[in-house]
Amino acid sequence: MGEGTGKSRTIVTIYGQQYTIVGQESPDHVKEVAGLVNDKMKEIKGKNPYLDTGKLAVLAALNIGDELVKLKEKHNNQEKDGE
Amino acid sequence: MGEGTGKSRTIVTIYGQQYTIVGQESPDHVKEVAGLVNDKMKEIKGKNPYLDTGKLAVLAALNIGDELVKLKEKHNNQEKDGE
Repeated sequence: MGEGTGKSRTIVTIYGQQYTIVGQESPDHVKEVAGLVNDKMKEIKGKNPYLDTGKLAVLAALNIGDELVKLKEKHNNQEKDGE
Repeated sequence: MGEGTGKSRTIVTIYGQQYTIVGQESPDHVKEVAGLVNDKMKEIKGKNPYLDTGKLAVLAALNIGDELVKLKEKHNNQEKDGE
């Protein structure tokens, strides 16, 4: 930050653990994504209280990936249909 | 499966660990999403060899969530523009 590289450094907390995210994304964007992952992990934990953090994070990634793949398909279909 | 509930049961391996995914999605869809998560974890591990599996999975979820949030924004903008 302030080094003219266009990179920002954002610290987020996910499931009680801090992560420093360095990149070209705005801190607001990074925080939005971190909130999404954090919420998803808590939601899955609510349904499966005995899962360890590693598996919980993998299941959160699967969940978010599921949404991404579906949205990509929807996006592609709309482009194909010219809508 | 075959019980008339419309639910399928798919076993996938992510980062050496097996997960049984039960849901209404087709096994092909589940495998595609699992492949996405697995590839992302390996990619991040390649750049950060000392991360433990839990953090690796959280970072993979962040990465996939980043793509999802961006695609959602793109999608919303296109709808706004009527394109």
